[in-house]
Amino acid sequence: MPAVPVALPHHRYDVVIEPGVLDELGARTRAVAPAPMALLVFDRALESTQLPRARASLEAAGYETVSVPFPGGEANKTLATVQGLYEVLLERRFERRAPVVALGGGVLGDTVGFAAATYLRGVPFVQCPTTLLAMVDSSVGGKVGVNVPQGKNLVGAFHQPVAVLADPLVLKSLPPRELRCGLAECIKHAVIRAPDLFDWTRSHLPELLALDPESLAELVARNVAIKAAVVIEDEKESGVRAHLNLGHTFGHAIEATVGYGRILHGEAVGLGLLAAATLSAELRVGARELRPRIEEVVGAAGLPRRAELPDDARLFEAMALDKKVAAGKIRFVLPERIGSVVIRDGVAPEAVRAAWGSIRS
Amino acid sequence: MPAVPVALPHHRYDVVIEPGVLDELGARTRAVAPAPMALLVFDRALESTQLPRARASLEAAGYETVSVPFPGGEANKTLATVQGLYEVLLERRFERRAPVVALGGGVLGDTVGFAAATYLRGVPFVQCPTTLLAMVDSSVGGKVGVNVPQGKNLVGAFHQPVAVLADPLVLKSLPPRELRCGLAECIKHAVIRAPDLFDWTRSHLPELLALDPESLAELVARNVAIKAAVVIEDEKESGVRAHLNLGHTFGHAIEATVGYGRILHGEAVGLGLLAAATLSAELRVGARELRPRIEEVVGAAGLPRRAELPDDARLFEAMALDKKVAAGKIRFVLPERIGSVVIRDGVAPEAVRAAWGSIRS
Repeated sequence: MPAVPVALPHHRYDVVIEPGVLDELGARTRAVAPAPMALLVFDRALESTQLPRARASLEAAGYETVSVPFPGGEANKTLATVQGLYEVLLERRFERRAPVVALGGGVLGDTVGFAAATYLRGVPFVQCPTTLLAMVDSSVGGKVGVNVPQGKNLVGAFHQPVAVLADPLVLKSLPPRELRCGLAECIKHAVIRAPDLFDWTRSHLPELLALDPESLAELVARNVAIKAAVVIEDEKESGVRAHLNLGHTFGHAIEATVGYGRILHGEAVGLGLLAAATLSAELRVGARELRPRIEEVVGAAGLPRRAELPDDARLFEAMALDKKVAAGKIRFVLPERIGSVVIRDGVAPEAVRAAWGSIRS
Repeated sequence: MPAVPVALPHHRYDVVIEPGVLDELGARTRAVAPAPMALLVFDRALESTQLPRARASLEAAGYETVSVPFPGGEANKTLATVQGLYEVLLERRFERRAPVVALGGGVLGDTVGFAAATYLRGVPFVQCPTTLLAMVDSSVGGKVGVNVPQGKNLVGAFHQPVAVLADPLVLKSLPPRELRCGLAECIKHAVIRAPDLFDWTRSHLPELLALDPESLAELVARNVAIKAAVVIEDEKESGVRAHLNLGHTFGHAIEATVGYGRILHGEAVGLGLLAAATLSAELRVGARELRPRIEEVVGAAGLPRRAELPDDARLFEAMALDKKVAAGKIRFVLPERIGSVVIRDGVAPEAVRAAWGSIRS
């Protein structure tokens, strides 16, 4: 499978999607970030499975490798965790050229990436995503950051990786709930700009949910290609990259109010897609049939279609804290049809209430 | 006086050096960062002098302005201060387009700039430097960051301002010690690439030390032009921008070991220039006469030429923690002659010891 290049004006890197590519971590890192040492931050759940492969590969390539476990979970995506990584980097005297490698899901990658973005004003960062969600979304594009009590990802940076290695074999042991979360972002990509991928995903859900390696590899490659294209068009989210926030204005508010531990990001995004489709119909942006079409796939992917939500006032408050607020107005990304979205602000609160109501159980 | 443009590939901004320009803060900010609100972080020492001017200007331009005092001093250039700024920004629900304005010296600008670089992955940042050092150096070029117990500026980012407003009138009340610190960076610029500025500075030191506004304005403009040219050539310090570290490898180690409160940055840089000149002669990079030529101007500027330093072992340790270490080797910027520098690593420890000895009292 060919690498997907992310060619930005100031920096170019490859997303390599290949069975077994994790064993090439050392050689591929050395090609872009030669240095005496490497920091390898890994999800503790991978300690006996993927960590030995990654560490052996780095050491074989000549890196003195410092491995640091990350406990996992949104609750650890904090400045305190980042400060802990600074401590390790400082204590071991990591220099500016030494790479920092993230081996884990999106929460780990975002947090480690923020440390890499800010230690010595930025050091080389390698992403080894181990969840479907991280492979198709967070590991590509350079958005890194942490949560604060007021909301998700409110502190962060843009820091492009020097390489992304997505090994589909790693997904064989992915828990079903995590797989479904990744599918939510894939459905999102398809709704934004790929009707063919929407149909392909719907028809391949049985194989995907059965963790068929070839289907997963194709899914990752097609989604990375979409994500990369959007990032190349608009790295810093001044335009089209905002489309990737489809479902996220609702989704972030759901996570913030329901609680980060109780609902996963992908589950909230899946609900957010449904709310956005309903809002689209309320505003006569898209047809009424959009919602059932998206809901069919979201449901078939095993994602929730309803949730116990707090009252509208709390949801509006959470939305108002989101990063995407401009001039005091909440901006919504809305599907026009499968494969096309538009951005709207100044939306009537009644329409948003109807959208919330449509996913409240 | 014309503005000095800093035209980077991805972003362009002006450094405006003009008597009274602080009263144009609001209008000039609105031109580059229109939004309903602005955060104004000010040095507490300016509360009754420059703060009212800056705030009135922002409010006249329609910004709802939130003013936050910064206590000043290197000891407050910390992640804790940055977190305090996040709290204000979050509590007041600052959105992505709202500008953050730094009114103060380099320590304040670096700290506030890091908050602006990382809040919501980066918001517009306006520098209003109020010290000579901040005007000629830290406010231009986008380096922002904070200190950690292990050393200076070890956590940070590159975040270019959207505007820099340097009002020479503000310097009229600058304490003599602060003025001298700014002169150290000006002497550094001249040694790196401007023999004419070296001579001009030496001959104008009496007027400069007497705070003559016209001489100060010319000094600022000439130095900003140098700094801007270097930053345009090499924004992220992969090449020529490293020249600006002349005197800083020694200087940072002096600050770290003597103590941030006891010696000021500019004083340490002045000493670092002398040590670098001696090291240059030891390595036969430059002539022996370079040291006395630079020392004459450093001394005439009222900067220390010797300091009580710890033993060499501690100084070497502090240097090894500096950001500029590459492949385990400490890199030195060395003057070849007035107006030209070279970079050397793998320098013999004996030569470095001789340099330390030459500035030890």
